[in-house]
Amino acid sequence: MNAMSNAEVIDHEFNRLREKLPLWLQENRRFCRDGKVASYIPELSKASGNHLGIHIIDASGRSLSAGDCGVAFTMQSISKVFTLLLALMDRGEEAVFDKVGMEPTGDQFNSMLKLELVQPSIPFNPMINAGAIVISSLINGSGPAEKSERTLQFFRLLAGNNKLDFDNDVYRTESASADLNRSMAYFLKDKGVLACPVDEVLEVYFKHCSINATCSDLARMALVLASGGRDPVTGAALIPRRYVQIAKTFMITCGMYNASGQFAIQVGLPAKSGVAGGILTLVPGKYGIGVFGPALNPKGNSSAGVRLLETLSKEMNWSLF
Amino acid sequence: MNAMSNAEVIDHEFNRLREKLPLWLQENRRFCRDGKVASYIPELSKASGNHLGIHIIDASGRSLSAGDCGVAFTMQSISKVFTLLLALMDRGEEAVFDKVGMEPTGDQFNSMLKLELVQPSIPFNPMINAGAIVISSLINGSGPAEKSERTLQFFRLLAGNNKLDFDNDVYRTESASADLNRSMAYFLKDKGVLACPVDEVLEVYFKHCSINATCSDLARMALVLASGGRDPVTGAALIPRRYVQIAKTFMITCGMYNASGQFAIQVGLPAKSGVAGGILTLVPGKYGIGVFGPALNPKGNSSAGVRLLETLSKEMNWSLF
Amino acid sequence: MNAMSNAEVIDHEFNRLREKLPLWLQENRRFCRDGKVASYIPELSKASGNHLGIHIIDASGRSLSAGDCGVAFTMQSISKVFTLLLALMDRGEEAVFDKVGMEPTGDQFNSMLKLELVQPSIPFNPMINAGAIVISSLINGSGPAEKSERTLQFFRLLAGNNKLDFDNDVYRTESASADLNRSMAYFLKDKGVLACPVDEVLEVYFKHCSINATCSDLARMALVLASGGRDPVTGAALIPRRYVQIAKTFMITCGMYNASGQFAIQVGLPAKSGVAGGILTLVPGKYGIGVFGPALNPKGNSSAGVRLLETLSKEMNWSLF
Amino acid sequence: MNAMSNAEVIDHEFNRLREKLPLWLQENRRFCRDGKVASYIPELSKASGNHLGIHIIDASGRSLSAGDCGVAFTMQSISKVFTLLLALMDRGEEAVFDKVGMEPTGDQFNSMLKLELVQPSIPFNPMINAGAIVISSLINGSGPAEKSERTLQFFRLLAGNNKLDFDNDVYRTESASADLNRSMAYFLKDKGVLACPVDEVLEVYFKHCSINATCSDLARMALVLASGGRDPVTGAALIPRRYVQIAKTFMITCGMYNASGQFAIQVGLPAKSGVAGGILTLVPGKYGIGVFGPALNPKGNSSAGVRLLETLSKEMNWSLF
Repeated sequence: MNAMSNAEVIDHEFNRLREKLPLWLQENRRFCRDGKVASYIPELSKASGNHLGIHIIDASGRSLSAGDCGVAFTMQSISKVFTLLLALMDRGEEAVFDKVGMEPTGDQFNSMLKLELVQPSIPFNPMINAGAIVISSLINGSGPAEKSERTLQFFRLLAGNNKLDFDNDVYRTESASADLNRSMAYFLKDKGVLACPVDEVLEVYFKHCSINATCSDLARMALVLASGGRDPVTGAALIPRRYVQIAKTFMITCGMYNASGQFAIQVGLPAKSGVAGGILTLVPGKYGIGVFGPALNPKGNSSAGVRLLETLSKEMNWSLF
Repeated sequence: MNAMSNAEVIDHEFNRLREKLPLWLQENRRFCRDGKVASYIPELSKASGNHLGIHIIDASGRSLSAGDCGVAFTMQSISKVFTLLLALMDRGEEAVFDKVGMEPTGDQFNSMLKLELVQPSIPFNPMINAGAIVISSLINGSGPAEKSERTLQFFRLLAGNNKLDFDNDVYRTESASADLNRSMAYFLKDKGVLACPVDEVLEVYFKHCSINATCSDLARMALVLASGGRDPVTGAALIPRRYVQIAKTFMITCGMYNASGQFAIQVGLPAKSGVAGGILTLVPGKYGIGVFGPALNPKGNSSAGVRLLETLSKEMNWSLF
Repeated sequence: MNAMSNAEVIDHEFNRLREKLPLWLQENRRFCRDGKVASYIPELSKASGNHLGIHIIDASGRSLSAGDCGVAFTMQSISKVFTLLLALMDRGEEAVFDKVGMEPTGDQFNSMLKLELVQPSIPFNPMINAGAIVISSLINGSGPAEKSERTLQFFRLLAGNNKLDFDNDVYRTESASADLNRSMAYFLKDKGVLACPVDEVLEVYFKHCSINATCSDLARMALVLASGGRDPVTGAALIPRRYVQIAKTFMITCGMYNASGQFAIQVGLPAKSGVAGGILTLVPGKYGIGVFGPALNPKGNSSAGVRLLETLSKEMNWSLF
Repeated sequence: MNAMSNAEVIDHEFNRLREKLPLWLQENRRFCRDGKVASYIPELSKASGNHLGIHIIDASGRSLSAGDCGVAFTMQSISKVFTLLLALMDRGEEAVFDKVGMEPTGDQFNSMLKLELVQPSIPFNPMINAGAIVISSLINGSGPAEKSERTLQFFRLLAGNNKLDFDNDVYRTESASADLNRSMAYFLKDKGVLACPVDEVLEVYFKHCSINATCSDLARMALVLASGGRDPVTGAALIPRRYVQIAKTFMITCGMYNASGQFAIQVGLPAKSGVAGGILTLVPGKYGIGVFGPALNPKGNSSAGVRLLETLSKEMNWSLF
């Protein structure tokens, strides 16, 4: 074949995506039926299990979307990627990895087993709940209000969206029904891993989990990671490249709960999912992607969302591996 | 040999005890050196590791003592036997064993492993911390203050000592440093095992753990159990016999933390130990016994106290087995 | 009340037993329906789930029986009590408890968890499979044949029955389908707990599990334990009293798999059950008892057998506690 | 900057590597002192802890080496990558992943915990021992000899080295001291995961672990993976691209025992290590790399080898993330 220039290749890919995306979304919508909307708090259970949406932005700012993209949802565990980045920027690698490990666990996101079984009692990684709670304690700020405000501003900056905000109903309800996370936090406190009071840490944690976003917000935040930490529009360095590398690696090894290994094999992209049905993923150097599909499979990931990303990765040959 | 009457046998035993007890205590005092005084709160660490005392009361009210018997100490886990009895009297067997099991665990007293690993997530027995926390939630009363007051009155009644009281310094300090127990309580709350708020349950729990007693108080309380639930002096039924039977069985199978099996083999008496160094034990139908020796062995039991009871059981042929 | 002589009390009890036993058996037979006959090898699955039998011998040799007492069955785990005794007689306490612990586990009889989780990697007690396999390795003998022969002769002596023998069909089939026990044995071998080759140890282990007996054999063996190790007829000391004490204590704390705590509360007698439906139990100083009911409850104990013993213990006031 | 052609970039990189490799090797040699040579069998303990060597081959067949490259060593766990590939080629994805999972475990390579704790009882992934044993059972062949012969021929093909062979001393000794692997295999047999007899499976398993190789053999095998399954010289497709993708993904998520997450962050390349001190890794599309350094860190990976790869990844900007 005739050699295409780099720009031509990119256009070609983008055009194919534009043409096929609605079809691929439509084909995978049926997998919504295999999942169930999270119901542990009433606010989440209101979501429609039939929803499936995707938003893709490329490095030049062009965007595509398909399906139910207008719906806002709380970021939940997706926020863990960005609080990790903020904590790394606030404290540096050494301080962060003194309190949280780098290894996948194979256990459920809310398991406490390894905290008791493995010494030292630090969480295995920042993507499981115990680890993300520790990360919340490492964000700079004079108290939980300032920490939460700094987190929100950081998220707004990355999303290029000053309207990003907390969903206070979700925050209050999750905080009120958070006995298991509270149990984990007190365990960590007992082991000396948390420097702040448990209530303050959990306030920060539940606040960042409750930040409302749409697929396009996720896609924009993902694009910053895909661009090595730079604002894709202005080129400004928002996050040091090394920290982006760390975040992307965790997204590969532990981003999809205890289905991360399978996702790495079937999709092969750095990704993070949340219990409200969001998935943030990216194609390095190329695309930021936000997916929303609140019907969850048994591992806690968007049922149809994972299937849609499998289709995309196979069709577009996107796997890193 | 000439047959002795029952009363003669009792007198003979008692006389032998009176004669030998100081010697046996003296011989076992050296095992204090093998142990360490608990130090997780300053109040406990003040105890003298050299102390060893014992008080024995027989069914007719005669008492013997040897060693450091005048020292008061907090009952800690010993209180779990009596809150179990109170909960049984308040709620009945069925309600209690709906929320807590009957099996020894083989794990440490503060382990959370089985709560996550074994379904349903109820504590294995009322002698481990998780189980005793559940029991605290089952004591009748309009709130934690009333529950604690009822508990104290029950303990006073059994000890025949109206001066028995909470050690408020120990209570406050343990409550303030109770992250692991708090973690356990929130875990149980999450699983639906605790009906009351965590803070209220823990207030009751730490209050009864902080009740101050001496060896003679323990001996008197033990004598009620040795007498099948009756006040040994007045003959009044203080506790239904069936519940006493349940309590004594737990003392055999789980009373000495994860050294209960060994204690059953080496001593063979129902017993319960506490982290302040107390051991309450009994010879059914005959003796109530209180021991105090704050230097603890690695399993958390009074180092010299356990040895002294081994000597007594062997010399007096007291094992139930 | 008029004082009865000791002998009169015994006669009174025995007469009550004689009168009531058939009724009590009949009342509890319906619990056969709650259980299921073991089916992991065809030989066991042939047993009739409706069978329930009991045989009781008192210290003077008088015996009572009711129900399906003529049926022979393999001793299975019941044999663990007596191989423990033989190993203690062959090696002494210190050598035995260097290789196996004294604590109940709370785990299933065939669990390997604690072997990996708890250091040192010795089995928690001699009543779980891992522990009994270690005990098999401690029986004296130049090889597996001699060890098995010595075991059989010891069992015959205690049962007063020279016809006691291995069920070779059961032995061969269990040995051939023993992957999990083999897994356990190799794990113990790896940890240095087994001195002999795995195949030899397992031959001894499966051989003693396959010894055929009836309720009256179990009752006779139990009576030796109830008599402190003496032959109830000749008065000859067959087992040192101390070892009998150890065995009885294990029967209380770990004799009924992970329902031992519940059995101690509901029945309160030293007992050991086997997967073929047998239960051997005893009233110290008084009775040896053999029960057979092959329909097992979910914990692996004879469903109706446990219920029948609950009735007996309550009606006759037999609990040790 | 002036645009370089692709070929120029490659040459530039290769020249930098050629220039710097001896220096980087020298700088990292001191980390040999942080590790210890494996000693569980005498054959492994003979290796020199001071050895460190590396061999790199690029896609055009040019090779570089530094340090102790002439020494042969057994592949051990490195072979697991290639038996997985062979099993995938023999049986297909579905049959393979019916018997082994895709998730990292966080546990040690020889842990059995999750086999008992997580249902179904299939190994979490093919890189831990339990998983690799299952994979050995899935290689086609009429018996262990044929399976081993097919494995060897496959390894020879990939290494382009017909002299590759088993180290029979290592095979015999490992097979004879393999109680823990045997324990695992019998556990898997019990759960129905192994179709063949345990002894046959283990023969195949220990045989492929014992294949002798040098750094240049590893580099050549790695280059096939880096080339998407094609012979880099002839261009012939040796392994389907999809299976290579699967293998590379496992190498990222579970290739370096329970330090895989850390290696992914610090190095970011697909890699597999073995207990003899080898590491096979690759830069997709560019390089196959073999490293040898028998002094192991506490997680079981070559101590200096990991450090050398960290230097290379940072200096050459090789991380996939």
